[in-house]
Amino acid sequence: MIVVMKSGVKQEHVDHVVDLIRQYGLKDHIIVGTDRTVVAAIGDDRGMDTSAIENAPMVDEIVPILKPYKVASREVKSEPSVIPIGGGYEIGGKKFGVIAGPCSVENEKQLMQAAHAVKKAGAIGLRGGAFKPRTSPYEFQGLGEEGLKLLAKARDETGLSVCTEVMSISQMDMVAEYADVLQIGTRNMHNFNLLQAAGKTGKPVMLKRGWSATLKEFLLAAEYIINEGNQNVILCERGIRTHEQYVRNTLTLGIIPAVKHESHLPIVVDPSQGTGHAYMVPSMCKASLAAGADGLLIEVHPDPEHAMTDGAQSVTTETFAQVMDDLKRVAEAVDREM
Amino acid sequence: MIVVMKSGVKQEHVDHVVDLIRQYGLKDHIIVGTDRTVVAAIGDDRGMDTSAIENAPMVDEIVPILKPYKVASREVKSEPSVIPIGGGYEIGGKKFGVIAGPCSVENEKQLMQAAHAVKKAGAIGLRGGAFKPRTSPYEFQGLGEEGLKLLAKARDETGLSVCTEVMSISQMDMVAEYADVLQIGTRNMHNFNLLQAAGKTGKPVMLKRGWSATLKEFLLAAEYIINEGNQNVILCERGIRTHEQYVRNTLTLGIIPAVKHESHLPIVVDPSQGTGHAYMVPSMCKASLAAGADGLLIEVHPDPEHAMTDGAQSVTTETFAQVMDDLKRVAEAVDREM
Amino acid sequence: MIVVMKSGVKQEHVDHVVDLIRQYGLKDHIIVGTDRTVVAAIGDDRGMDTSAIENAPMVDEIVPILKPYKVASREVKSEPSVIPIGGGYEIGGKKFGVIAGPCSVENEKQLMQAAHAVKKAGAIGLRGGAFKPRTSPYEFQGLGEEGLKLLAKARDETGLSVCTEVMSISQMDMVAEYADVLQIGTRNMHNFNLLQAAGKTGKPVMLKRGWSATLKEFLLAAEYIINEGNQNVILCERGIRTHEQYVRNTLTLGIIPAVKHESHLPIVVDPSQGTGHAYMVPSMCKASLAAGADGLLIEVHPDPEHAMTDGAQSVTTETFAQVMDDLKRVAEAVDREM
Amino acid sequence: MIVVMKSGVKQEHVDHVVDLIRQYGLKDHIIVGTDRTVVAAIGDDRGMDTSAIENAPMVDEIVPILKPYKVASREVKSEPSVIPIGGGYEIGGKKFGVIAGPCSVENEKQLMQAAHAVKKAGAIGLRGGAFKPRTSPYEFQGLGEEGLKLLAKARDETGLSVCTEVMSISQMDMVAEYADVLQIGTRNMHNFNLLQAAGKTGKPVMLKRGWSATLKEFLLAAEYIINEGNQNVILCERGIRTHEQYVRNTLTLGIIPAVKHESHLPIVVDPSQGTGHAYMVPSMCKASLAAGADGLLIEVHPDPEHAMTDGAQSVTTETFAQVMDDLKRVAEAVDREM
Repeated sequence: MIVVMKSGVKQEHVDHVVDLIRQYGLKDHIIVGTDRTVVAAIGDDRGMDTSAIENAPMVDEIVPILKPYKVASREVKSEPSVIPIGGGYEIGGKKFGVIAGPCSVENEKQLMQAAHAVKKAGAIGLRGGAFKPRTSPYEFQGLGEEGLKLLAKARDETGLSVCTEVMSISQMDMVAEYADVLQIGTRNMHNFNLLQAAGKTGKPVMLKRGWSATLKEFLLAAEYIINEGNQNVILCERGIRTHEQYVRNTLTLGIIPAVKHESHLPIVVDPSQGTGHAYMVPSMCKASLAAGADGLLIEVHPDPEHAMTDGAQSVTTETFAQVMDDLKRVAEAVDREM
Repeated sequence: MIVVMKSGVKQEHVDHVVDLIRQYGLKDHIIVGTDRTVVAAIGDDRGMDTSAIENAPMVDEIVPILKPYKVASREVKSEPSVIPIGGGYEIGGKKFGVIAGPCSVENEKQLMQAAHAVKKAGAIGLRGGAFKPRTSPYEFQGLGEEGLKLLAKARDETGLSVCTEVMSISQMDMVAEYADVLQIGTRNMHNFNLLQAAGKTGKPVMLKRGWSATLKEFLLAAEYIINEGNQNVILCERGIRTHEQYVRNTLTLGIIPAVKHESHLPIVVDPSQGTGHAYMVPSMCKASLAAGADGLLIEVHPDPEHAMTDGAQSVTTETFAQVMDDLKRVAEAVDREM
Repeated sequence: MIVVMKSGVKQEHVDHVVDLIRQYGLKDHIIVGTDRTVVAAIGDDRGMDTSAIENAPMVDEIVPILKPYKVASREVKSEPSVIPIGGGYEIGGKKFGVIAGPCSVENEKQLMQAAHAVKKAGAIGLRGGAFKPRTSPYEFQGLGEEGLKLLAKARDETGLSVCTEVMSISQMDMVAEYADVLQIGTRNMHNFNLLQAAGKTGKPVMLKRGWSATLKEFLLAAEYIINEGNQNVILCERGIRTHEQYVRNTLTLGIIPAVKHESHLPIVVDPSQGTGHAYMVPSMCKASLAAGADGLLIEVHPDPEHAMTDGAQSVTTETFAQVMDDLKRVAEAVDREM
Repeated sequence: MIVVMKSGVKQEHVDHVVDLIRQYGLKDHIIVGTDRTVVAAIGDDRGMDTSAIENAPMVDEIVPILKPYKVASREVKSEPSVIPIGGGYEIGGKKFGVIAGPCSVENEKQLMQAAHAVKKAGAIGLRGGAFKPRTSPYEFQGLGEEGLKLLAKARDETGLSVCTEVMSISQMDMVAEYADVLQIGTRNMHNFNLLQAAGKTGKPVMLKRGWSATLKEFLLAAEYIINEGNQNVILCERGIRTHEQYVRNTLTLGIIPAVKHESHLPIVVDPSQGTGHAYMVPSMCKASLAAGADGLLIEVHPDPEHAMTDGAQSVTTETFAQVMDDLKRVAEAVDREM
């Protein structure tokens, strides 16, 4: 941490800051510049609220130096992590992994059609919500355990890994019983109790980035899970809230090289949530792979015009098959396998 | 809902959209404009995912018309709601209500000092976190039930209403036992299970706006609580995420007239979270009152330089007393009481 | 500037950074922390692109320390600036100054009605666009010089100071001939040639904040004007682009205490552009004054339903008179005069 | 345009809106829904400020239906436009075109090194700023005409098309004399007089998206140029302002399929401005191509550690050569040529 003093600072102000730094158990180091004096505080301040020093007289600002995350960082583990997701499949290695399926599990016919279609096209996982976080209380909230049972049945029939969302701690055991991968949704990325509970299951966790989360917050959410002894975290970029209105969310693929730079965790992209429009999905699938993502999470529906949730952003099974063919060509061009 | 067709649409495309609208149980109404044909769908579509119609051929976009919230809206209840918060105090009437106290309950001495000081200065409620949602797992997570007991003790000593955060359903009963007002934090505004659980307690709920929540989403979160039979919802603006970096969050006071326009619920402002810097708090307190807010939620600490959390944005008890004096003058100027 | 090295850095990397710092004419100062080594570069680096050092091997990030603005900063001039705007009026002193009038000058009758009404209600300035920056080439672009002449006539009749926008260097002489205050619009805040040209006129400049400008960029835009020898800069907050859609722009009143903290320049608020809806304007006027702003820029139209531009955000002359009465009471409560 | 009335509306309010609609020369069409009455206004309202109707009593909101742009839209011209950029090169066809070079022209040696290197690696154009828009008046502002002459010399030596920024109308003739492509920078996308002046030259225009511009505003800026009779507009996505801080700007590749959906104009991507960090550039180059972009604008410098501007985001000539090799493979995978 660097404490920047205002110009015109007196010795007593610097002394007071030095005192505070020592009270926090850190070492001080004063640098007198041409216009400004700064005091460096040396030591690990990750667990402290040293921003309180901003209140001291004549302090201009506090500049953190240490990255707040540890176990998710590349500094601690330099090789990329490869996460097993069940069914013999993995995310994070040379193979690019696609998880696809309907936004919500609506009924057996819909799910099985989707599952067989995505399996045939080359997906390694099946997505589908049994518990749905809905902005409005009047909207379809999911089939609950009945939906989980259908997902398990689809896995039995296809061999796909099943990835589905868990919204609260009380659902954790039930979802963990049926699912291969526990999805933490974007609305819950900052739900720290839920992150810890997911961590305790030991199951792979698909952690979606919060709507307005920074990269640091995203990696710290992963840190909450890993700190429970669960290394199996897959990050998922799904778009952020910006001023853009032609998309439901603004997909930010720049986070892919940034995550690779900062962390050993794999990252996949959800181009369905990340755009909100089915016509944009194929383009963003190819872009994600070319940018270096480790996989995709795509909404596929046998009949999007009648989907109960997220119809506008779901691609048909036919479009999905075409996308997979296209991705195979791109994968080869960027030295990935499918 | 209005379905806007692309230019160059053919009759078969319009017919197909009309079919879909009827399948959704709505009535259709076609308007042929000079450049565009639009199809209005008449009926209550709040529970449907009618955006799926966007997938139909030659559909350009879907424009919703109905507001998705009902019971939180001014259309359903035109007079402003006044919410009792315990101790004989209320939020939402002519009286402007200030709830103040430390970010975290740290120990008995700190809390009692803060409680007596804010009471003396004219606050009606005491805030203080016993369970703290922290971005990093390495940071202070709160005293838990011990903190709740201290809050209850402070209430006994001062008569202040106690407002404190509940982070998960498993804490709900415990927090409800000690607190007068249940705070749902910004990170949990979209945690729908938690909203429903808070609704079931019947206790007043202080609902903080999510970092990137729209006004619609904010009112729909209130709707989740009210739908459980609990009318006692107080909205709290606390800043949103934007590109601005000189503040921790961007406080948007324009939401005050907007909420008054759309809803009967009271709205208070948190200028501490909403700026991140103690020096900005007095200015934003006065602005919030002048803008028409019903109260404030302010972080006050006897010794901000040593606060365990949010020190940079906590004002001293002396500053708080000055702010309260200033607010009394502004209140008179805008026909409010304190 | 602080150069933060990655963990695991070797002496040769530090040596290379030290070399670069010296090549830039700065002094180096190495601090070895527990986890990280940082190199402080001492000296005035405001004119250099020292971010280039980020490219050096094992550099993690560059943290600037010096504020990039000088002459606009409070460090250079600690007393607030008071800007004369013609007609014996000022912005920036104890008196709170309101400039009001139509978005566009449409015709003589409309302008004179507006001018006399705002003068009677207590405004000190008349606003009105003769040159209009319009998002679409098909929209009304303003009356040009004819509009300027009408503004000058309104000044002659009312004694109000005239504030109007200049969009390009070629219009500068003409606008400066008629106007008392040159307005640089939000779309031109980064138009550095225009800023310099406005600076050269010596006339007071109303500088509107860019849609997505940071505080630093806003003050640096003022710096461009002041550097031409023109101290008469009034800053104007008018809302930024965010995810919020119930407003045209998100008004951020937190910038008022921030500007007062960083700069000696006065700041006024445009609540019309800053909300986009007439019903929000009275609330935001009072909030701006209470927050510490030095004045307002308000769109007032005798007949908003038929306004040629910005009708939705223009208040009637009757509403404006009421707002002025309300502001007088708030001004007294915050020790300002009107 | 659809005028949505508030619930509880009376016939007189609807009649008043109908009157207004007719005064604007449009036809009215009333639809009475279950909860709401809406009035559709039929006719071309692109040149009017019909939002003024929002002021009429009991109007809830105004919903536009017509897209405000015409000549830039795919409705008017369905085949993609291919823009000749000089030297026999084009942007917008099957060939993916890369324009590369230093941020600023610094001196002859630097420019010639860069020009020859990018030519050899397969670029079709040379970028380089002679006039630099700098946030601070203390920073390097470019070599001016001397820089333009160097660019022309580089073209003579390499055959590359030269793309360089024009910042003001007064520079237009001079820049047009030396350059093949006139670049309008992000800070000037809303500088409508400059857009018109660029349109009048007839030269190809590289139009960069404003920091906070919407898609509509971006296409309307192109419309300003095309309306002057100049069809040769190339759009350039270069990132927007968001809350993200690990990047200088947030690159939004979703705009590529959106532009292809809405417009016939080609779109290229600037991954240097769009990230701010050299290490992210190769990833974003490949992603842009895979997403369907028509080309790239990349900052390449022979010695980024000593670049006078934008060093942190400039790749070396070696990295650039590698990127071009990688792009050739991706191009083949997505049926493009280089």
